[in-house]
Amino acid sequence: MSKNYDIKDLNLAEQGRKRMDWAEKEMPVLRLIRERFEAERPLEGIRVSACLHVTSETGNLMRTLAIGGAEVVLVASNPLSTQDDVAAALVAYEEIPVFAIKGESNDVYYQHIKAGLDHNPQITMDDGADLVHGVLKERPDLIAGMYGSTEETTTGVIRLRAMAKDGVLTFPVIAVNDSDTKHLFDNRYGTGQSTLDGIIRATNILLAGKTFVVGGYGYCSRGIAERARGLGANVIVTEIDPVKALEATMDGYRVMTMEQAAAYADFIVTATGNKHVIDQRAYATMKDGCVICNSGHFNVEIDIPALEAMSLEKRQPRTFIDQYWLKDGRKINLLGEGRLINLASAEGHPSAVMDMSFANQALASEFLVRNHGKLSNGVHSLPKDLDVEIAALKLKAMGIDIDVLTAEQVEYLNSWQEGT
Amino acid sequence: MSKNYDIKDLNLAEQGRKRMDWAEKEMPVLRLIRERFEAERPLEGIRVSACLHVTSETGNLMRTLAIGGAEVVLVASNPLSTQDDVAAALVAYEEIPVFAIKGESNDVYYQHIKAGLDHNPQITMDDGADLVHGVLKERPDLIAGMYGSTEETTTGVIRLRAMAKDGVLTFPVIAVNDSDTKHLFDNRYGTGQSTLDGIIRATNILLAGKTFVVGGYGYCSRGIAERARGLGANVIVTEIDPVKALEATMDGYRVMTMEQAAAYADFIVTATGNKHVIDQRAYATMKDGCVICNSGHFNVEIDIPALEAMSLEKRQPRTFIDQYWLKDGRKINLLGEGRLINLASAEGHPSAVMDMSFANQALASEFLVRNHGKLSNGVHSLPKDLDVEIAALKLKAMGIDIDVLTAEQVEYLNSWQEGT
Amino acid sequence: MSKNYDIKDLNLAEQGRKRMDWAEKEMPVLRLIRERFEAERPLEGIRVSACLHVTSETGNLMRTLAIGGAEVVLVASNPLSTQDDVAAALVAYEEIPVFAIKGESNDVYYQHIKAGLDHNPQITMDDGADLVHGVLKERPDLIAGMYGSTEETTTGVIRLRAMAKDGVLTFPVIAVNDSDTKHLFDNRYGTGQSTLDGIIRATNILLAGKTFVVGGYGYCSRGIAERARGLGANVIVTEIDPVKALEATMDGYRVMTMEQAAAYADFIVTATGNKHVIDQRAYATMKDGCVICNSGHFNVEIDIPALEAMSLEKRQPRTFIDQYWLKDGRKINLLGEGRLINLASAEGHPSAVMDMSFANQALASEFLVRNHGKLSNGVHSLPKDLDVEIAALKLKAMGIDIDVLTAEQVEYLNSWQEGT
Amino acid sequence: MSKNYDIKDLNLAEQGRKRMDWAEKEMPVLRLIRERFEAERPLEGIRVSACLHVTSETGNLMRTLAIGGAEVVLVASNPLSTQDDVAAALVAYEEIPVFAIKGESNDVYYQHIKAGLDHNPQITMDDGADLVHGVLKERPDLIAGMYGSTEETTTGVIRLRAMAKDGVLTFPVIAVNDSDTKHLFDNRYGTGQSTLDGIIRATNILLAGKTFVVGGYGYCSRGIAERARGLGANVIVTEIDPVKALEATMDGYRVMTMEQAAAYADFIVTATGNKHVIDQRAYATMKDGCVICNSGHFNVEIDIPALEAMSLEKRQPRTFIDQYWLKDGRKINLLGEGRLINLASAEGHPSAVMDMSFANQALASEFLVRNHGKLSNGVHSLPKDLDVEIAALKLKAMGIDIDVLTAEQVEYLNSWQEGT
Repeated sequence: MSKNYDIKDLNLAEQGRKRMDWAEKEMPVLRLIRERFEAERPLEGIRVSACLHVTSETGNLMRTLAIGGAEVVLVASNPLSTQDDVAAALVAYEEIPVFAIKGESNDVYYQHIKAGLDHNPQITMDDGADLVHGVLKERPDLIAGMYGSTEETTTGVIRLRAMAKDGVLTFPVIAVNDSDTKHLFDNRYGTGQSTLDGIIRATNILLAGKTFVVGGYGYCSRGIAERARGLGANVIVTEIDPVKALEATMDGYRVMTMEQAAAYADFIVTATGNKHVIDQRAYATMKDGCVICNSGHFNVEIDIPALEAMSLEKRQPRTFIDQYWLKDGRKINLLGEGRLINLASAEGHPSAVMDMSFANQALASEFLVRNHGKLSNGVHSLPKDLDVEIAALKLKAMGIDIDVLTAEQVEYLNSWQEGT
Repeated sequence: MSKNYDIKDLNLAEQGRKRMDWAEKEMPVLRLIRERFEAERPLEGIRVSACLHVTSETGNLMRTLAIGGAEVVLVASNPLSTQDDVAAALVAYEEIPVFAIKGESNDVYYQHIKAGLDHNPQITMDDGADLVHGVLKERPDLIAGMYGSTEETTTGVIRLRAMAKDGVLTFPVIAVNDSDTKHLFDNRYGTGQSTLDGIIRATNILLAGKTFVVGGYGYCSRGIAERARGLGANVIVTEIDPVKALEATMDGYRVMTMEQAAAYADFIVTATGNKHVIDQRAYATMKDGCVICNSGHFNVEIDIPALEAMSLEKRQPRTFIDQYWLKDGRKINLLGEGRLINLASAEGHPSAVMDMSFANQALASEFLVRNHGKLSNGVHSLPKDLDVEIAALKLKAMGIDIDVLTAEQVEYLNSWQEGT
Repeated sequence: MSKNYDIKDLNLAEQGRKRMDWAEKEMPVLRLIRERFEAERPLEGIRVSACLHVTSETGNLMRTLAIGGAEVVLVASNPLSTQDDVAAALVAYEEIPVFAIKGESNDVYYQHIKAGLDHNPQITMDDGADLVHGVLKERPDLIAGMYGSTEETTTGVIRLRAMAKDGVLTFPVIAVNDSDTKHLFDNRYGTGQSTLDGIIRATNILLAGKTFVVGGYGYCSRGIAERARGLGANVIVTEIDPVKALEATMDGYRVMTMEQAAAYADFIVTATGNKHVIDQRAYATMKDGCVICNSGHFNVEIDIPALEAMSLEKRQPRTFIDQYWLKDGRKINLLGEGRLINLASAEGHPSAVMDMSFANQALASEFLVRNHGKLSNGVHSLPKDLDVEIAALKLKAMGIDIDVLTAEQVEYLNSWQEGT
Repeated sequence: MSKNYDIKDLNLAEQGRKRMDWAEKEMPVLRLIRERFEAERPLEGIRVSACLHVTSETGNLMRTLAIGGAEVVLVASNPLSTQDDVAAALVAYEEIPVFAIKGESNDVYYQHIKAGLDHNPQITMDDGADLVHGVLKERPDLIAGMYGSTEETTTGVIRLRAMAKDGVLTFPVIAVNDSDTKHLFDNRYGTGQSTLDGIIRATNILLAGKTFVVGGYGYCSRGIAERARGLGANVIVTEIDPVKALEATMDGYRVMTMEQAAAYADFIVTATGNKHVIDQRAYATMKDGCVICNSGHFNVEIDIPALEAMSLEKRQPRTFIDQYWLKDGRKINLLGEGRLINLASAEGHPSAVMDMSFANQALASEFLVRNHGKLSNGVHSLPKDLDVEIAALKLKAMGIDIDVLTAEQVEYLNSWQEGT
């Protein structure tokens, strides 16, 4: 590749900068970290390759890393999620090489991943473990120089733990997703709002009075369930874990198998981290006109090949909708090709939650540098005190005061002598 | 005007037709009416001028009227709310003259209203009483031939009742908004979802954890309040009516004056049908960065001139956002120029509620024809049985069975002899 | 009857007074009216017979009427709803004759009604139209002297309108239930909380995760549905009115027939004003262990004779629960003998809503006196301005300020000349 | 003590048995365990002393342990929480010695604890670590024979971990509260409903429209917050943990310090496990008439001595309410003497959640026996598979089917080779 970036159009840079500035106002924690990074330069000279959704919030993270001294390259973590104007702004104003074009082909997508590896990163920053996968499979020569990696998403962490279990993860990884200030907020409130936003933008269908099925009841999926209910839908949850299924029941949702649920569904959304959550059995019971989509990381949660095999043809009644005409006369509407609907037809997670997620990312990269050589290979969490600090900064930025333990209370909590 | 339409681009017609077809699936009641109209032709030869938001749902209403025999002309009821592809589809495929261009100037807007009057309508169909106003003020010659008018919106009905009170309303008007199947659904569920949709599309800000102020607690505004709460916001309501204020309190919202509320607000939305609900007093207490917008019919609910007078300059950080830089350093973000935010930055009410609203419109126009000469001048409601029939058709289309009174129950309800 | 009262035990008077005082703190509007009544004595010498649930709130209303000059007699409007200590307090401290004993037999109940008529009332105050019924059927001699009657409840108003339709209602009646400050609050928030309170006290069953069926979607029943959902239940609504059924659907509830719903129900509550809402057809599909109860005025909503006919025996596992052992082996639990569950096993509506309902009652009795001879026979509503005043007093007592229309806004609302 | 029990009245036994039977229907998981215990007798001859709230659910647990072969003694874990009829039923029908009388003095309370120790238990079962505390402080001779202890509540676990940290916990303890099927359900849904139930029974005040402050946002307190909101209150949360405070904010609650919150509060409830959460600073800002209570384990969360020091006198307007008349004229209402309000004025957690909590208790005692000699001293959790089994049994009993992983899905979750 002769030029050091691959984006749609540099002329979009000004619009991208405006969008980044707008997002930045909702990211006060990252701003405070950026100000400290500017003074302390904790990442001085470190090569960082980031494979993330190229959004205005990611733009602000990249800027933070660069101001902290890192040599940053950014590549898309999903063919559909790139905001081309942000990509342009990073190239034009921040001089950060970006390889990401909205709607890029699978081939180009993998070329871009490769560009991330070609940067010879010392730190990789992943949203789905693609760069880690690339390092291990294609560029084992990089392993020796690796400070480590950071991972954003539930799906990536599941994948990394599987690697660790298999003994192939030969450098430390920080599971940013483990931080409370990440998964309790980004996954729940971020995914919740943005998934519904994506569905509404794609379909413009009223949710009130509709039956809405959510596959899974982890943090992402319960965020989706809560927002769907908040918009007036009648929500059904499917699960494989009895404890979560019981929680969903007690939270007032109906719980049943996906096959049973599909027969009632006007909408089905998956966010499980698993494969083929909507499959042949669900298609068999689905109502005519059902809308299905995915908000989990990978586009494998819906078994699209099985759907295609059942169909005579595929039409596109609106952007982001593929309407499958089944042989039995039913039509099933698949949104965003089964990819993350909140990024495909909306703008991804709102800035206010990415603020905390990316504060974790920034602190995780600093943590890898400060603890270089001290961390074992495998998956680590960020220390709890960094997590609490991020939450405290966020509250402060929101103008919220909370109680502080009195000396008497500290003593009480540490004692066990007082009786009833 | 030499050609019989004024739209943006005829080439958008195919996209508009797809969009109309997609909407039509959510409009089963209107479909059933259309099928009957096609057989019965109740509007044969009647000239109808409609001044409505030109959306995919309106497109389906126009088609219904035309199939029912009417000679229809459609003009925009708002400079920002036109879907140009739908306008094109109506011209290209339905041969209905449309005068509407998204973003048209005020001059063009009034030219288009004039085009509606030039059609010499026997029935006018309004969303804000603009055609009625035009007939009375500019084309009194039409009055003698008028079957009457139908009115869609709360604001229009307020205006028409004021006209009736002043004795100037010299033909019958059907207040479609009075129908339960209109205001209980369109105003509440439609405005609720679409207003939040508009705000999120315009700003991409997370609502969870934000303070969200709703001006008013009528059907529209309580729909907005409920959806904002459903998205995790902490909602404050302002009202002028003590009964509604008390309802809002008992529904768990904080209630206070707009001046008090503005000091807490991250967002303020108005939907009152009144003027200058956000004014100088509210601007004085607003936080830096506050987002304000309107979902009421007219763009007078926010006192924009007062805001401009307080400002040094105005920037546009994102499409649909005007950011006012106040002399005291605060920035206030106005969305969609103070016009209906659900139409400015989203797609208006979802089809499923417009289905019932436009079923009322279609039946109201038929009612005017069938009762020509029998209705007094002034504001009328549709008969209750038509209202109930629309609801029953909707339930049927949704596959929902409800109970039917037994003979014993009918007798019981009509009797007063049985004791405790 | 030799003594001028019939209560359980005068020794309960002190406890009753404490309970009335506790309630009074939540009744600021009635307090303000009482203070005015004390000064103005608008009911001087008027004989009032009230047939109401004898609760602490009713006690405060009786006191208000007496302070306003009325000669008051109070009788129970339901055999199970009397608070014996309040009855005692009224006799002992307020010298108001009371005829009411919790758990009284049907015979005693009718004796008490008769005692109310024996007072030769000029005004009757009803909760279910029993005194009006008695006057018309048994004491027509009273009619000539009647100022009129006031009626508290939906059921009573239905009954009175039936009487008016039949032409037998030969004096004016104020339908207090028509006031917004009555039915929007008492019926919705009062019935909602107190019905769930009654069910929980009777059963101590966890609602989270249960399927809860509500018969009806009027103000009472939607209050119940909302609170059941608020406690974590999955709620199903049954209706006979398509418009209300559609509202329930769009509010996110499942809607179906009672027969269909009974198959899913852990709980069924009726509040419809109708008869045999739970009947043979519902019993046929009910699950073993289902709990059924009623929160409508009369104990006819559940067809108890049909249930008894299906049963081998009846046991009482807890107070207020009759467990029917059906011939097919299922057990069905009926609460409070099918009478108003919020009064049978709880304390009726909380004071804060009765404050407004009884403010309406007090003002209605004053209205009857002030307009003696001016009102036509039949059912009347209180004037809207009294309604608004009650709401405004309540807000003031809660410390809530609301906006007041500016001169500019008043003019705007009365004008129709301003355009888009 | 000459007789081997100390209860209020043996004649209450039949009523107690009915209540236990009613509860048992909501406890299917415990029932299945009881059936297995009857066959397997895993606790044969083991002496178990249980210090728990003596409720109908506890009665069913005791029965289960006895059927499993244990020699059981039950003593009250709180002076106010005993259901005297259940105590009688256990003595009369199950021949289980019980030492518990509702309203017992502190002296009697400690005598009863002593009776529990006098049984020379091999297993203690605690709800607040009182028996463990007694063994360690007063009966160290028992330690050598101890299989271990099980602990029910958050507060007890905090206390036990403090003991372990201090090195004084010289036998194994199973923290039943750690089980997902305990703390996710009992603490959240059980405490939520029963706390509100207790408050409503004690006060009969309408929650809709009231400001309700919850101290804490752990599992118990968020359950309370959710139910208070579900009943129409406007909820404020106080916290000391920034992460939880932020969650509460994003869940739509206002968050502030207790001192700030008290100024708005109509109700304040604490459930933190900490001491003096409501103290001098909160009293200083409280509104006249504020209702305060506690739902945490110990009655130390409210600083009652400080309240008494500010007061001129104390009255009792209703059972369970102490009304403090402050020197400055305000009145503050304390419920249930600051003890667990859901047990003081209601019936404790509903059976359906205690089913799972006590299933954990039963399995924990079996686990201690089966692993005798294998567990280290200190605090242990139950194995995850027992937890999942309990949830699965519960779902089965509720008639709910959930999905099972396909072979393909199991492989996918264990693999990391598949890409985007």
